[in-house]
Amino acid sequence: MVASKALFYAVAVVAVVLGDALAASEISQVKIWPMPASVSYGDARLYLTSDFGLSSDSESQILKDAFNRMLAVIKQDHVIDADFSAFNRSSLLQGLHIVVSSPDEQLQYGTDESYKLMVPSPEKPGYAHLEAKTVYGALHGLQTFSQLCYFSIGRRVLEVNMSPWTIIDQPRFPFRGLLIDTSRHYLPMAVIKKVIDSMSYAKLNVLHWHIVDTQSFPLEIPSYPKLWDGAYSLSERYSAADAAEVSALLTTATAENHFFWLCFSCEQLKRHRMNESQAYQYFVLRAQKIALSHGYEIVNWEETFNDFGSKLSRKTVVHNWLGGGVAQRVVESGLRCIVSNQDKWYLDHLDTPWEEFYQNEPLTNITNPKQQKLVIGGEVCMWGETVDGSDIEQTIWPRAAAAAERLWTPYDKLAKNPREVTGRLANFRCLLNERGVAAAPLAGNGRDAPFGPGSCYKQ
Amino acid sequence: MVASKALFYAVAVVAVVLGDALAASEISQVKIWPMPASVSYGDARLYLTSDFGLSSDSESQILKDAFNRMLAVIKQDHVIDADFSAFNRSSLLQGLHIVVSSPDEQLQYGTDESYKLMVPSPEKPGYAHLEAKTVYGALHGLQTFSQLCYFSIGRRVLEVNMSPWTIIDQPRFPFRGLLIDTSRHYLPMAVIKKVIDSMSYAKLNVLHWHIVDTQSFPLEIPSYPKLWDGAYSLSERYSAADAAEVSALLTTATAENHFFWLCFSCEQLKRHRMNESQAYQYFVLRAQKIALSHGYEIVNWEETFNDFGSKLSRKTVVHNWLGGGVAQRVVESGLRCIVSNQDKWYLDHLDTPWEEFYQNEPLTNITNPKQQKLVIGGEVCMWGETVDGSDIEQTIWPRAAAAAERLWTPYDKLAKNPREVTGRLANFRCLLNERGVAAAPLAGNGRDAPFGPGSCYKQ
Repeated sequence: MVASKALFYAVAVVAVVLGDALAASEISQVKIWPMPASVSYGDARLYLTSDFGLSSDSESQILKDAFNRMLAVIKQDHVIDADFSAFNRSSLLQGLHIVVSSPDEQLQYGTDESYKLMVPSPEKPGYAHLEAKTVYGALHGLQTFSQLCYFSIGRRVLEVNMSPWTIIDQPRFPFRGLLIDTSRHYLPMAVIKKVIDSMSYAKLNVLHWHIVDTQSFPLEIPSYPKLWDGAYSLSERYSAADAAEVSALLTTATAENHFFWLCFSCEQLKRHRMNESQAYQYFVLRAQKIALSHGYEIVNWEETFNDFGSKLSRKTVVHNWLGGGVAQRVVESGLRCIVSNQDKWYLDHLDTPWEEFYQNEPLTNITNPKQQKLVIGGEVCMWGETVDGSDIEQTIWPRAAAAAERLWTPYDKLAKNPREVTGRLANFRCLLNERGVAAAPLAGNGRDAPFGPGSCYKQ
Repeated sequence: MVASKALFYAVAVVAVVLGDALAASEISQVKIWPMPASVSYGDARLYLTSDFGLSSDSESQILKDAFNRMLAVIKQDHVIDADFSAFNRSSLLQGLHIVVSSPDEQLQYGTDESYKLMVPSPEKPGYAHLEAKTVYGALHGLQTFSQLCYFSIGRRVLEVNMSPWTIIDQPRFPFRGLLIDTSRHYLPMAVIKKVIDSMSYAKLNVLHWHIVDTQSFPLEIPSYPKLWDGAYSLSERYSAADAAEVSALLTTATAENHFFWLCFSCEQLKRHRMNESQAYQYFVLRAQKIALSHGYEIVNWEETFNDFGSKLSRKTVVHNWLGGGVAQRVVESGLRCIVSNQDKWYLDHLDTPWEEFYQNEPLTNITNPKQQKLVIGGEVCMWGETVDGSDIEQTIWPRAAAAAERLWTPYDKLAKNPREVTGRLANFRCLLNERGVAAAPLAGNGRDAPFGPGSCYKQ
């Protein structure tokens, strides 16, 4: 059993079917997920050189780190040892040239996320060209570029097929969120960071970290150091520094305020002569004022709108979850809205298949353009009752990706029938698997195992 | 929604239970998995300095890489920013001193895997001390050291509790395997590499890569370049270089020979005037001779032993799978055996709980010490019919870990009742989650989701 040699097995059960399923169509269609706003392509093939690098006037560390992550990801842990002398020099890509017009890396709601990607560059044919107004637009462009790259095992080289590519892209909605819940089950830091990486592959840009709830309080609050005694265990906690680090990784971070019942004991209710709903209203309106005075944006779950909507600050964003039709009423009242109707966009509803995630239209019955603009986006919710570090990835993916395309891609380019995009979404889920993300098969309910032997692209 | 600020939610459903479940016992028991041969410990606490490093006369790159991987793993992606001026200097560990007595890094069946770990070093108290005959023993010692390290979120520092530790350790069986199957479903390279990392955490040392079978042939064979046309798709393939890289990552690699039906068409059977079973026997015996002439070890699935055992080479290792009792007959006949009885050690049998994996004793009814030595170990088998990149980790773990302890730990130290080790195995599965490995809860069948909210340590 020398390592350079091998154990030698013999069995009698092999009858290999040759030549099955290897189709050229695999590399002759636009496979990008989510589909960009505008795509044109050709039929040429380019090859990335072994020292394919970043070329940019920008000194942005965010950009450099993202480029290096992208390079690691597209190699998919394969051995890349092509014989480049065999390739035509004019078909080689030596690098990606990136132009970012604004040096401002301040990130806020409404930050420009558009980009333009050309492969190869019309001016420097040995390079790909990416331009964006902000570094965050460039990050999306890098994700798209990564999906143009295909590792050819036969040639042991990274290829870009169907070039020349010109992709002009920007999101339909500015708020494209995923909720994770660390109260019902603690999620290790490594798991949260992996979720964030995978969100970026689908161009989701808001992590809504539902850190605490009734079941556990894993977060350190330095000014109230006993709160995190409510964690499940000593290990199942996040320091304030951990939380700050997660939020530094994010395009946009959200945090919830869950202190209502901590602030209002039943004793206090009596003292203030309020019943529970009065106290709740008092708390919410007071908290709104405090938050606004500190320059925060405020988002309230829809109960506040349903119960005392007219009293809410006009700056409130109402977060829908109870069902459809709420967004319509919210924007008619002039407030902004985030769509998360539980019948379609709750990932813990395992019997909601990806097709329903795909078809959930945030602007249903909202035709007035001014009102349409008040729907700032949507969020898929991964509530944690049956989700921990063992199964969160395949409960989120690929269904969250279906919603991500709904939120990114222009309405006119969305498939009317989800079957039209089954193959492309299957491709994206296999891409996630290749990147080490445990995205489940498309067939079946949420997080079903593959039903039997077969190709990733058909399951 | 500036990143440095946050969205601000208000909801009305929070009533946190304070002080629940935080038990000091979490850090006052031996939690190492698999349990070492000999362990002694004390009650002192040591702290790893922020520049905790490797100190060794060895120039081994294998050792340096493993040390760096270990350091990354124990940090578990937390922010580590302890104020070291607050600690007593005598309680600080500045590094790990490693002594490897043999410079020989040739790896083969029977390579010494023993190690001795002392924390702190009796001679240099500011260091931990690890010694081993081979670098591979030292790797196991690093895994054990990693499990002594505990990240204290309260103090934001890596601690070693219950020191001084003295651990003297070696495996009970030299062959501790895991089979993966890339014929029923392709497994991306990133997934295979992650499986290998996770195997090392449980001190499993043999990856049995069942690369090809009836359903698909994903492997490049340069001398027969059409074979991998039998892959599911162009992407679902491994180049010969990929396979060589995987085998370079391994402690011991195995490869199977599945060419029987390719070599023997029905035409050929007629021409040779053999029926199928005659042809199979001819093939196996011929392949044995060829393999032996090239210096390979040979392992045959048990059918060969059951059908024509007396004709097999005396060097054959018989791989049991059909059921119990086979190992006994194999070693009575003087051949060596690997135990994988499907009723207990097939991971694709989802209704076999971890307790049965733990209790499966390879030496059942084998009392003669000479015969006992012929049982070289065992292997848990992750057949791939319903396993792909989405669910392989939680189908393997934690059940493979239960078998790993059976194969590593001295018989007398194994729990007679698996309930005695439930807490320690739960701890190991949470450790895997913290390291980004999607190990499933202990409760329920293989890869069941957590049944409801709760602590990782209790599910």
